[in-house]
Amino acid sequence: MSKVFVNIGLSLDGYMAPEGMTMENWDKPEYKNWGAKWGALMGWALNQEYIRENLKLGPGGETGPVNDLLRSTTERIGANIMGKRMFEGGERGWPEEAPFHTAVYVLTHEKREPWVRPFYFINDGPERALELARESAGSRDIRIAGGADVIQQYLNMGVIDELEIALAPVLFGTGRRLFENLREPLPQFRIDRVLDGPTATHLGYVRQ
Amino acid sequence: MSKVFVNIGLSLDGYMAPEGMTMENWDKPEYKNWGAKWGALMGWALNQEYIRENLKLGPGGETGPVNDLLRSTTERIGANIMGKRMFEGGERGWPEEAPFHTAVYVLTHEKREPWVRPFYFINDGPERALELARESAGSRDIRIAGGADVIQQYLNMGVIDELEIALAPVLFGTGRRLFENLREPLPQFRIDRVLDGPTATHLGYVRQ
Repeated sequence: MSKVFVNIGLSLDGYMAPEGMTMENWDKPEYKNWGAKWGALMGWALNQEYIRENLKLGPGGETGPVNDLLRSTTERIGANIMGKRMFEGGERGWPEEAPFHTAVYVLTHEKREPWVRPFYFINDGPERALELARESAGSRDIRIAGGADVIQQYLNMGVIDELEIALAPVLFGTGRRLFENLREPLPQFRIDRVLDGPTATHLGYVRQ
Repeated sequence: MSKVFVNIGLSLDGYMAPEGMTMENWDKPEYKNWGAKWGALMGWALNQEYIRENLKLGPGGETGPVNDLLRSTTERIGANIMGKRMFEGGERGWPEEAPFHTAVYVLTHEKREPWVRPFYFINDGPERALELARESAGSRDIRIAGGADVIQQYLNMGVIDELEIALAPVLFGTGRRLFENLREPLPQFRIDRVLDGPTATHLGYVRQ
């Protein structure tokens, strides 16, 4: 059966996004210094050949185990689930052809028509989104793409099989924390793999 | 000059101690399950030969790179600084001969006589404790032992040279967070080393 997994960048102090990185300030990366903080979080990825190719950032970039990990992670995804805020960021930030080659289920209370394929808006909650994602993923895996609140909902449902975290040495101080609002019984993980790069440590955990 | 460093265990969700691990519940490890959570956090250490010897837990234990790291970390400490809550936990939890072979400066507002050497109670704030620790450390290093609030004070002073974190795959859900109350400008670190063990990942960062 498909695995359900999370694959995100995390600041050393546990934030997925810095304070100030919101729609209103999308064009003001100097606001609360969010652009520099985001850059320090994701810089490792933007240097990889696979990401440069996928986001159409131009030729070049590193090849090696981190690049291989990015490629195999992307290739195993059969469906994505994300929250509305992440989608709205993407609507503005992604290139014309969004970097998802699978169905994407967007959790929202808002009724709206599909944006452009492959985005589907789900008003019936996270369980229903996961059901639909399982159907469309086939034998591939389902990535809970984010944001933090969506990942927290699936952690509390106990359905996350794998947690993949690229831990960058930057401190954000404030922002959107990954690990909050978790309820007992907490899911239990064990260490699966550790891959170290110069600007991020790639931690892989699997559910016990 | 002496380095100032932090060396702690951290849960995957960023806690140094689980909720419920307080003086009142010291003899009730089943309260909010704090004993099991603490065990999951520190289990890697209690299996190491050096710690077993140091805490008088009996013979045996693992030898290898994690054990070597524990030994070299302990041996480079010339002075310790800690908060009052951590000291009070230690008063009850440590064996008769406390496992510190250096002066220990305890930050507190309370006036009290030295407990048993080497514990000194400092009422003049963290700067003064660091001055005294530098004097007594000589060429060795100064460990900011904890708790979280004390580490936060020294991070905000910008004097932490090295951050050593043993990241365990356990989730606490609630408790005492390491990274909170940090102020701009935030200290900047880079990755120095990553050592992976089966039950904790040993992350070393140095100030840029």
